[in-house]
This record gives sequence, structure tokens and C-alpha cells, in this order.
Amino acid sequence: MRTLNVALGERSYPIHIGPSLLERADLILPHLKTRRVAIVTNDVVGPLYLARLQQALQSQGVDVASVVLPDGEANKDWPTLNLIFDALLGGRCERSTTLIALGGGVVGDMGGFAAACYQRGMPFIQIPTTLLAQVDSSVGGKTAINHPLGKNMIGAFYQPKLVLADTGVLDTLPPRELAAGVAEVIKYGLIRDLPFLEWLEANLDALLVRDPEALAFAIERSCANKAEVVVADETEQGERALLNLGHTFGHAIETGMGYGQWLHGEAVAAGTMMAAELSRRLGWLTDADVVRAETLFLRAGLPVHGPVLGVERYLELMSHDKKVEAGRLRLVLLRELGRALMWGEASEGDISAAIEARCR
Amino acid sequence: MRTLNVALGERSYPIHIGPSLLERADLILPHLKTRRVAIVTNDVVGPLYLARLQQALQSQGVDVASVVLPDGEANKDWPTLNLIFDALLGGRCERSTTLIALGGGVVGDMGGFAAACYQRGMPFIQIPTTLLAQVDSSVGGKTAINHPLGKNMIGAFYQPKLVLADTGVLDTLPPRELAAGVAEVIKYGLIRDLPFLEWLEANLDALLVRDPEALAFAIERSCANKAEVVVADETEQGERALLNLGHTFGHAIETGMGYGQWLHGEAVAAGTMMAAELSRRLGWLTDADVVRAETLFLRAGLPVHGPVLGVERYLELMSHDKKVEAGRLRLVLLRELGRALMWGEASEGDISAAIEARCR
Ligand SMILES: NC(=O)c1ccc[n+]([C@@H]2O[C@H](COP(=O)([O-])OP(=O)(O)OC[C@H]3O[C@@H](n4cnc5c(N)ncnc54)[C@H](O)[C@@H]3O)[C@@H](O)[C@H]2O)c1
Ligand SMILES: NC(=O)c1ccc[n+]([C@@H]2O[C@H](COP(=O)([O-])OP(=O)(O)OC[C@H]3O[C@@H](n4cnc5c(N)ncnc54)[C@H](O)[C@@H]3O)[C@@H](O)[C@H]2O)c1
Ligand SMILES: [Zn+2]
Ligand SMILES: [Zn+2]
Repeated sequence: MRTLNVALGERSYPIHIGPSLLERADLILPHLKTRRVAIVTNDVVGPLYLARLQQALQSQGVDVASVVLPDGEANKDWPTLNLIFDALLGGRCERSTTLIALGGGVVGDMGGFAAACYQRGMPFIQIPTTLLAQVDSSVGGKTAINHPLGKNMIGAFYQPKLVLADTGVLDTLPPRELAAGVAEVIKYGLIRDLPFLEWLEANLDALLVRDPEALAFAIERSCANKAEVVVADETEQGERALLNLGHTFGHAIETGMGYGQWLHGEAVAAGTMMAAELSRRLGWLTDADVVRAETLFLRAGLPVHGPVLGVERYLELMSHDKKVEAGRLRLVLLRELGRALMWGEASEGDISAAIEARCR
Repeated sequence: MRTLNVALGERSYPIHIGPSLLERADLILPHLKTRRVAIVTNDVVGPLYLARLQQALQSQGVDVASVVLPDGEANKDWPTLNLIFDALLGGRCERSTTLIALGGGVVGDMGGFAAACYQRGMPFIQIPTTLLAQVDSSVGGKTAINHPLGKNMIGAFYQPKLVLADTGVLDTLPPRELAAGVAEVIKYGLIRDLPFLEWLEANLDALLVRDPEALAFAIERSCANKAEVVVADETEQGERALLNLGHTFGHAIETGMGYGQWLHGEAVAAGTMMAAELSRRLGWLTDADVVRAETLFLRAGLPVHGPVLGVERYLELMSHDKKVEAGRLRLVLLRELGRALMWGEASEGDISAAIEARCR
């Protein structure tokens, strides 16, 4: 088992990473205020893993309530969140009861937000079960639900007491979901960790066959990278924005294709290639650099081109997504492999050309 | 104008108290991040005061959106909260837009919670328009909505950037609502401020005819008392519980009578007399002390007896309300006038006798 500490002063918490952590009630017990927990999961993850977690806790004398939500981003909304509140109140859960979110990013975001709001805040433990949630939602304290007019519009910053990233549960993850998580892992290498990028070039195959050691290393290194950025910039003013490499292009793909067609990680992969192409045009990356990034994404089975929406449509969608400063888009680009920067000086011509070159 | 600073480190904020503050856009401007605000009010307060506030801000070049909610505690729920989110998103409000809550405690609690959640937190200014909200909700950062299974069950701790307590808007407050606010003012005197209690004995009539100077003094002194307690005990472990003098008995009255029959302040007045009676039985208050408290409530037109629900029913309702320790209720009682304490040693016989004596 690997352990990483997210150093946020009073709100610091450990992330444990390794196989079979679901059964490790001993890791959970020291973080409980009382011997009562409420587990939030969904109807895909629940049948696979709820009983194991529940039994491990019950065998230690912990009183366990549970709520099973309908699966899917489409249910990341108020009515579904309210199912959690109904269960907490119906089960007479107290402010000292600990909420455990067992599932992917959707369950984690909703469980975390419910914990932030229930009686103005109850303790929260995250057991992320997708690679994306393990490498991304585990750090940063963001929780939210969607509103019909906007994704993640209603939420809170709320830190967990503990994160358990069980590499074993990834065995049942559909390959497309695994790849989507790998896209965010590659992102950390590209923006700030060249040695990690090199490690990925050497070990991607092990990751894709879900080798526990490779997974644990990649998850720890990803979380460590994100934690360094978040700790330095909790309020998301400066460096934290660099975590959005590929995301402005990517969001245009997600929105332009219509909700649910592309997975987020897939859009990030294609979007990152657009950012790489633009960085090449600015003279920052070589052709060989771009090929290195592309090769990694391709090996993971990720798209390296966006859909043909028309450059105008891309630009329109991107101008909604992010702040425009003095008429120019501010984009996360690559000054070199392993070093991202925020850049507001790219011309529309260059941006258009980069999109054009990376649509197919 | 009087100004009180609530000293919460980075989250410190001023409370300005005085007449005609609604027009004082100059007090608001320094606290805005951008020249955009969204005012949340209701259909009772809006027609009276929205235009004045709106015009004052617009004349300073501030872009103002507004939402008018249906009045009443019965609407302190998710669907009504969602009207705020709809308006914020429909009006393309940003995370930097400031939300201003203009109304009583219900509008303040909902506006504050909406601000806490919108894009994970937007700046928030409170303009409380009831005496209760001015002396109670202005300090402490509590925000919430109700759930069908419990009052204030879903919420957040979220501090405002600024509170404007305009004594002039209290002119239109129904007398019963004014009296309910006075009950909480008297409470501060009883629990920790004997000189204030003496001031109230001398100046209650001025307060009841809404003399601006008397109101401003009482509001400032009440907020100062609450602020001292909150600053010493932000997490509500110890001293902060003393603010609940009369509330355990009072909640039994509110619940027992059915929702909306007794105003909260009315129930607190009768509940405080029960606590005073019990304190007398414990030998802490003299007969004369009890009469002093009773006289103040009576002069304010407040009830000093609870309804006849039967002692058994009171005890049952009270056992739901607050923590029971080793089978005994923990109650806020008066060690003397001006000094409250938390007491878990009162016998059921004494508690019953105190309730009995104060029901009519
Ligand atoms: N809070 C943050 O910092 C943060 C960061 C990134 C993403 N997110 C959010 O997370 C969500 C995306 O997360 P996601 O990619 O995990 O999606 P997801 O939660 O929808 O999970 C993807 C699918 O995999 C299923 N699944 C989960 N674990 C499984 C397992 N072990 N075996 C089999 N199936 C499993 C899920 O039920 C779902 O059908 C988005 O809503 C996004 O906004 C939040
Ligand atoms: N956040 C806190 O710390 C805190 C503290 C105490 C109470 N509260 C909450 O506040 C609520 C009670 O507050 P309240 O007593 O202000 O009730 P309220 O907001 O319902 O106001 C009472 C009535 O007076 C009307 N009104 C408000 N201002 C007026 C004015 N100037 N002129 C004429 N009418 C006016 C309102 O529209 C309403 O009909 C409860 O929901 C309670 O939970 C919160
Ligand atoms: Zn992402
Ligand atoms: Zn009260």
C-alpha cells in the first residue's frame, strides 16, 4: 500500500493506494467520529462492491446505512442528491455520522456535496472506483451537482477525511472508462512531470492490463502532482488552471458533440493534441515532441483528433467555456514537454490552424 | 450609523447599523468584486424596498439582477432555492457576481445558502429586514433550507462580506414579528449581559415604538454579544450552545403546536420562562429575578406561558430536540440573571414541575 498526504493544514488527509483496500476497515476506523457510516453508491458499483465494504465495516462493529443511486452523469442532479438526504434523515443519521462515497466521479461529487450540506457538514470519506476519480477527484475538494443550465454549477469545496483508492476494483471498469482515466494521467506528465511522462512511455502497457503495481504508482504520482498544484493554489487563481490542459478544446468537443457522446477523458486527449499542435506552431514543441504525446494517447486507445465541427463552431464553443481577455482566448499550452503555461497571445489564425490540423 | 466588526480572521466582516442604509450604495461598493449584483428578496419585502436598493446601486453604475421568491417559512425549500439558481444562471451571473439577500431570516438563509453553492461560492451581502434577522442571522454564518423531515437540515456555514441592518425598514414590520425579535434581544441580556438587561428595562418602550437610536443600540449590542460567543466557539461545541436559552422548551412548543402557529420568538419567550422557573427551583434565581424576566417579555407583548400540551408530551418533544446525556436532558439554564450555563443534572421531576408551572 502506498500513502500520500494531501497537506492542507487542518484539513489534511491521507490517500491510501493499493489492492483490496475495500476490506481494510482498519484504515477507515481511525477516521470515524462515531461508529456510524452511510455509504452512497450507484446501481452499477453497488452490486459489485457494496457488500464487501459493508461487511468489512460491520465486522468491526460499525453501523452501516446505504443508498444506491441510479447510475450516470444524467442523474448528477438535485432529485438524485435528495435521495441521499432522504436516506440520511430517514436513517436518523447525525452530523457525526460519516458519509462514504463508493463509486466513480459522479458518486464522489454527489456524495461529497451531500456531506458538505447535511446539517451544514458531516465527515466524508471517498472510495473512488474509476481511474479518473482516483487520479482527479481524489484531490482538490471539489464537489457539485449539475443544473439544467450548466455542469457542476451547484457545489462546494469540501475536503474528505480519507481517500481509499483500491486498484483492484478497476478490474471491472470498462476499457473505455479506463482509457479516459489514462488521458488525465498522461496530462500530469505533459504539464509538469517529464520523468513521469517517460515512466508512462515505458509502463503504459502494464497500466492498460491493470497491473496493480503500475496502477498504484501512476495513481500516486498523479495525485501527488495534483496535490502540489492544489496546495499551492487552493483558490484556483494561477497554477491550478494549468491542470486544464486540453480542457478548453475538450469541452468544445463534449458540448459540440452533445452530451454523453465523447467521454471527458477522450475529449481531453483530442483537446490536448490541439494544444500540442498550437504549441508546435508557436515554436515551443518539436515535431518529435508532438509525436511522443500522440503515441501515448494512441497506445491507450484514445482519440488524437477531434470531430469535424467546423473551426468556427469550435471557436464559438471555446469562447463560452473560458475567460476571454481583451478579445483573446487564454489557453493552457506546452512551453516544452513537461512544462505547461497559460497563454493569452495566440492569434485566432494560429488557433484555427491548430484545430483544423487536429480534426478528422 | 454604528459599525461592528465580526472578527473571523480572513472572513471578518462589518455590520453597519442605522437608518436609511438601503440607499447607501457607497457602503456596498467597496465590497463588490465586479459591478454586478443579484438581489434575492420575497413578494412581501420586494414591493416595499427592492426599488430603493436597486436604484441606489444602479445610480452608481452597478448592474442589478433580482429574484423575488414567494414569502414564508413553508417556501424555505429546494424548489424555491432553485428559483435563485435559475435566475443566476439565466442572468449569466458569474462566480464574481455578489448576491445580496434583502429580507427576513428566511430570505437570508436561502440567499446565503444559494451564494455558498453557486459555482461553489460567490460573494454574499446580507440586508436583514426583520429585527430577528438583524440580531440573530447577521452573525454566525449559518445558512440553510428545510427538508420535509427536518428544519434547517441542508445548509452551509458561509460568512457574508457585509451586513447592512437598516433600522428604518423595521417600520413596516408587523408588531408580532417585531416582538418576536425582541424576545431574542432579551435573551442576550439574560444569558451574558446584565447591563444590557438593565438597559432594556429602561428602554423597552422606545424599542417597541421603533425609536431608531434605541433600535440601533439594541441591534449592535445583540450582535456584539453573539459575535463574541461565535468567535470564541465557531464550531458550536461549548459556549455557543448557551445562545439556545429557552430554545429546547421553545422547539417543543413550536413542534407541539404544529408548524406556524407560534412564532419562533414567541416560543423562545415562553421557553425562557420555563428555563427561568427551573433555575429558580435549583436555587439559582430568586422570585424577584423571575419576575424581572417575565415583566420584560410581558411588556413586549410576548407569551410567558407555554400552551397546555401535557408535561409528558413536552418531555417527549424535548428528548427529540437535543442531545440526551446518560438519560438526562442537557438544558441551558440561568445561574443568575446575566449568566447562563449548560446543565445536565436537572431531575425529570424538577423539569416537569417547571413546565407545569409555566403552562396555561
Ligand atoms: N471533483 C473533482 O475534482 C472531479 C474531477 C474530475 C471529474 N469529476 C466529475 O466526475 C465525473 C466523471 O467521473 P467518472 O469518469 O468516474 O464517471 P462515472 O462516475 O460516471 O463512472 C463511469 C462509469 O463507470 C461505472 N463504474 C465506476 N466504477 C466502476 C468499477 N469499478 N467497475 C465497473 N464500473 C464502474 C460507473 O457506474 C459509470 O457507469 C464527472 O461528473 C466529473 O464532473 C470531478
Ligand atoms: N441564520 C441564522 O443564524 C438564523 C438565526 C435565526 C433565525 N434564522 C431563520 O430565520 C427564519 C426566521 O426569520 P424571520 O423571523 O425574519 O422570518 P421571515 O423571514 O419569515 O420574516 C417574517 C415575515 O416578515 C416579513 N418581512 C420581512 N421584513 C419585513 C419588513 N421590513 N416589513 C414588513 N414585512 C417584513 C417577511 O416577508 C415574513 O412574512 C427562520 O427560517 C430561521 O430558521 C436563521
Ligand atoms: Zn478533466
Ligand atoms: Zn432563536
